[in-house]
Amino acid sequence: MHIDREYLEKYNSFSPARKKIHRIIFGYDTFSGKIFDVILLLAIVLSVIVVMLESVGNINTLYGRELREIEWGFTILFTIEYIGRIYSSPKPRKYIFSFMGIIDLLSIIPTYLSFIVVGAQSLLIIRLIRLIRVFRILKLSRFMKGANLLRVALYDSRHKIFVFFGLIIIIVVLVGTMMYLIEGGESGFDSIPRSIYWAIVTITTVGYGDISPTTVLGQTIASLLMMIGYAIIAVPTGIVTSQIMYSEHKQKSRNCPKCSTVIENTNANYCSDCGAKLK
Amino acid sequence: MHIDREYLEKYNSFSPARKKIHRIIFGYDTFSGKIFDVILLLAIVLSVIVVMLESVGNINTLYGRELREIEWGFTILFTIEYIGRIYSSPKPRKYIFSFMGIIDLLSIIPTYLSFIVVGAQSLLIIRLIRLIRVFRILKLSRFMKGANLLRVALYDSRHKIFVFFGLIIIIVVLVGTMMYLIEGGESGFDSIPRSIYWAIVTITTVGYGDISPTTVLGQTIASLLMMIGYAIIAVPTGIVTSQIMYSEHKQKSRNCPKCSTVIENTNANYCSDCGAKLK
Amino acid sequence: MHIDREYLEKYNSFSPARKKIHRIIFGYDTFSGKIFDVILLLAIVLSVIVVMLESVGNINTLYGRELREIEWGFTILFTIEYIGRIYSSPKPRKYIFSFMGIIDLLSIIPTYLSFIVVGAQSLLIIRLIRLIRVFRILKLSRFMKGANLLRVALYDSRHKIFVFFGLIIIIVVLVGTMMYLIEGGESGFDSIPRSIYWAIVTITTVGYGDISPTTVLGQTIASLLMMIGYAIIAVPTGIVTSQIMYSEHKQKSRNCPKCSTVIENTNANYCSDCGAKLK
Amino acid sequence: MHIDREYLEKYNSFSPARKKIHRIIFGYDTFSGKIFDVILLLAIVLSVIVVMLESVGNINTLYGRELREIEWGFTILFTIEYIGRIYSSPKPRKYIFSFMGIIDLLSIIPTYLSFIVVGAQSLLIIRLIRLIRVFRILKLSRFMKGANLLRVALYDSRHKIFVFFGLIIIIVVLVGTMMYLIEGGESGFDSIPRSIYWAIVTITTVGYGDISPTTVLGQTIASLLMMIGYAIIAVPTGIVTSQIMYSEHKQKSRNCPKCSTVIENTNANYCSDCGAKLK
Repeated sequence: MHIDREYLEKYNSFSPARKKIHRIIFGYDTFSGKIFDVILLLAIVLSVIVVMLESVGNINTLYGRELREIEWGFTILFTIEYIGRIYSSPKPRKYIFSFMGIIDLLSIIPTYLSFIVVGAQSLLIIRLIRLIRVFRILKLSRFMKGANLLRVALYDSRHKIFVFFGLIIIIVVLVGTMMYLIEGGESGFDSIPRSIYWAIVTITTVGYGDISPTTVLGQTIASLLMMIGYAIIAVPTGIVTSQIMYSEHKQKSRNCPKCSTVIENTNANYCSDCGAKLK
Repeated sequence: MHIDREYLEKYNSFSPARKKIHRIIFGYDTFSGKIFDVILLLAIVLSVIVVMLESVGNINTLYGRELREIEWGFTILFTIEYIGRIYSSPKPRKYIFSFMGIIDLLSIIPTYLSFIVVGAQSLLIIRLIRLIRVFRILKLSRFMKGANLLRVALYDSRHKIFVFFGLIIIIVVLVGTMMYLIEGGESGFDSIPRSIYWAIVTITTVGYGDISPTTVLGQTIASLLMMIGYAIIAVPTGIVTSQIMYSEHKQKSRNCPKCSTVIENTNANYCSDCGAKLK
Repeated sequence: MHIDREYLEKYNSFSPARKKIHRIIFGYDTFSGKIFDVILLLAIVLSVIVVMLESVGNINTLYGRELREIEWGFTILFTIEYIGRIYSSPKPRKYIFSFMGIIDLLSIIPTYLSFIVVGAQSLLIIRLIRLIRVFRILKLSRFMKGANLLRVALYDSRHKIFVFFGLIIIIVVLVGTMMYLIEGGESGFDSIPRSIYWAIVTITTVGYGDISPTTVLGQTIASLLMMIGYAIIAVPTGIVTSQIMYSEHKQKSRNCPKCSTVIENTNANYCSDCGAKLK
Repeated sequence: MHIDREYLEKYNSFSPARKKIHRIIFGYDTFSGKIFDVILLLAIVLSVIVVMLESVGNINTLYGRELREIEWGFTILFTIEYIGRIYSSPKPRKYIFSFMGIIDLLSIIPTYLSFIVVGAQSLLIIRLIRLIRVFRILKLSRFMKGANLLRVALYDSRHKIFVFFGLIIIIVVLVGTMMYLIEGGESGFDSIPRSIYWAIVTITTVGYGDISPTTVLGQTIASLLMMIGYAIIAVPTGIVTSQIMYSEHKQKSRNCPKCSTVIENTNANYCSDCGAKLK
């Protein structure tokens, strides 16, 4: 992370109280910062559970009022936290328009909206995304390295994955249309989009069974589609596995401290080029 | 791509207008050629959506006439384009009988057929295959490399995949027949082909549930079949992964410019044989 | 294949006619031998289709007699072939008690049995196993190499696969029993074996839906089981992939013709030890 | 395994009879020890089958009393064995509080409990875990090596698997809530937790079909979720495969007996560093 001078100057001009709020809310290396993060995460999890419980019919009938009161409590807490983040941020605009800043705002709006729109509080579930902050408390770097490796592996194989999904979409649309023509409306294939939906349910091996072929020809085509779906999964798996292995390999190879040759053998004790002792 | 002299001579003898049509329709390196391709792909996607919407019962009742009119519009456009392709092609026969040429023709015929055969317009969905041209607009080479790697990997492992599918078919037919004898018609296993269909639905882990065993022995055999299907998927995945890794590896290795030794180490800076600097 | 002297001597003492029958039935390098194999395979496929069609209710009502007549025709043909095999085999006992010999016998018995036991002809489906002979017509060695690689890879990883299936069985029995106690008979979990059947249907991601949990606790445990089944498939896949790659690698490495060092680099042109030119 | 002096001294002070009991129950290298283990495993399997049969309605009605008597027989046997284990163990406390010791106790309690709590005997299924002892009879070390490799591979990739499951949970909760808002109660999405359950059933490709979307928007989102679930399985597979290959690779590499360089090439005959002959 490069050092932002303007950011630091702004921060140094803060009053001690404002600095302290910043350390508690944004920091995660002090004791109070860690405590704050733990409490915040607990509050997020609890508020999400409250939203879920509210959606269950008989729980809502019995404890609806209490749940709505708790929800309001959490919303007020998160609103105070949001204002605190803006107040203690040396660059408030940057925070407000960052991904996490927008999520923080979207996490409090639905409760206020529920005055106007009935049922808006279900949108509070978006608070869940705030849980990404959990990585700050856990040993951050290891998870970030894991997540990063996956991200890089998926990014590097995007062209192959794109080709693969293009193929799946073409298969699914063509087979869906064929089944619409063959089966007809009686067994549930009553429109092309619905038949395509069935083809996706089948090729991904989900198989709800809400729509299923009844004619002999239909069942034959369905069988072929299943076999394709069953076997073709090997392709993205192969792509991603190959990419992960390559990425990990690259991450593990290092340079000789003397002659800077790339050392691929992770167990090597000496540089294969100049014989310098490694590590 | 090797140079075809006859093709070039024929092309050079074209009038400037005919040359321009060729560049717009077939080319994709000029601005107008790119614009043409983008418009064509949009038209294909839109016309496929129109065909899909037409198949939905209540949309057809309300807007059936309008949709059919739009469909006719697209068909006329594609017909003009098809004639343009033949006219501006130095070797029209080669184009007409190429894979894409046949698809282009099949993409316009069903509309004209719908005068005679009711419901023929559903076949227009074949237009979707024309979308393969999308790769021309996107950075072609990368996707082609991705697609090519997959094609080579699948082709090279065809013997193993053939053995695998042979095994699956034998398992499926034998288990299907056993289930027909054990379960009988009451639980849906009323013929051998239908029982085989059930075995495919089960071994591929699709599991519609339209047919499912009810006897203890039937459920035991079904459980074994599921376990086989669940574990055996590892085999094609292993084959394809292994093949993809090998193909990628081969693609990445290069030859020394001096002594032409094969360099497998992708990070190597010097040839391991003669010490020549690489790249 | 080592040479069996006794076998050869016996074969040489045959009359020319008997030798010819042997070459046609067992051989696959002469023209007549190939023709015989192709006709045999076609007959097997056709006879299996006849057995399947016979099991379909309305086809049996309409064409039952004709199908049974065709079936008798095939059975008589296969009986003649079976006698021919015994007659022209230098070691008839070895053939009769070999795997293929037993299958050949089992492929004709059910028709004769159908005089006594009704429905015995469904067992004729065992003829399908005779299709393994198809590999003799196709370029044998390549498929055998593919099949062999798979066999070796699966055999070498049998300990890991055994551990994996042991774990799956323990999970499935424990979770099945838990669900029996939690859900009870109303939602279909009416005995422990049936609940275990459900657990297998779920962990393998088949999901028929004939039995599915209805209580909140049951659905929570089911969700966990699905997640386990979804993620744990990675384990056998990883094992088999790793084994296939290792087996292929071993298959591809060769020895230096001069110093017999093992050459792992498949692209190497010279021996890395003594510099001898390879291949 | 390091040698525990206190343990040995205690054992040496035992009477010959007590020593013999120890050898039979805990040992697995003498003949009587092996026989004991085989009988024990058979008894466990039989007692588990008895518990299962007892749960089947009509079997319980017919043979309920006999089954309960057999169950009591097994429980008394296992109780004697448990007392024998404590009596012949040099460090009985260590055994009682070890994992296997607790399982051994839990395997006999439910029968005694069934006097007080009806249906407690279903808990006897926990006896199944005692089957882990099966590895002692089979060639232990190979299975342990297999199991260990899997354990290490899963442990080493725990950060990546944690990130993967975190992602799955966030997707499942968000999509579940969306479906609750879109579909509503009529098609079964009558609360957020139930909709999340549906999302898990779908993303893991289980697909019971007890709840399935009926609106066009709902089916579109469901299709996307299926595609995600179908493709994303490649990620844990890739992680685990990569890890297994790395672990196996590390297990196979050895050190030069002379210069202790790490030899990665498993086929190498000479050390690549000092030329010493290997193995």
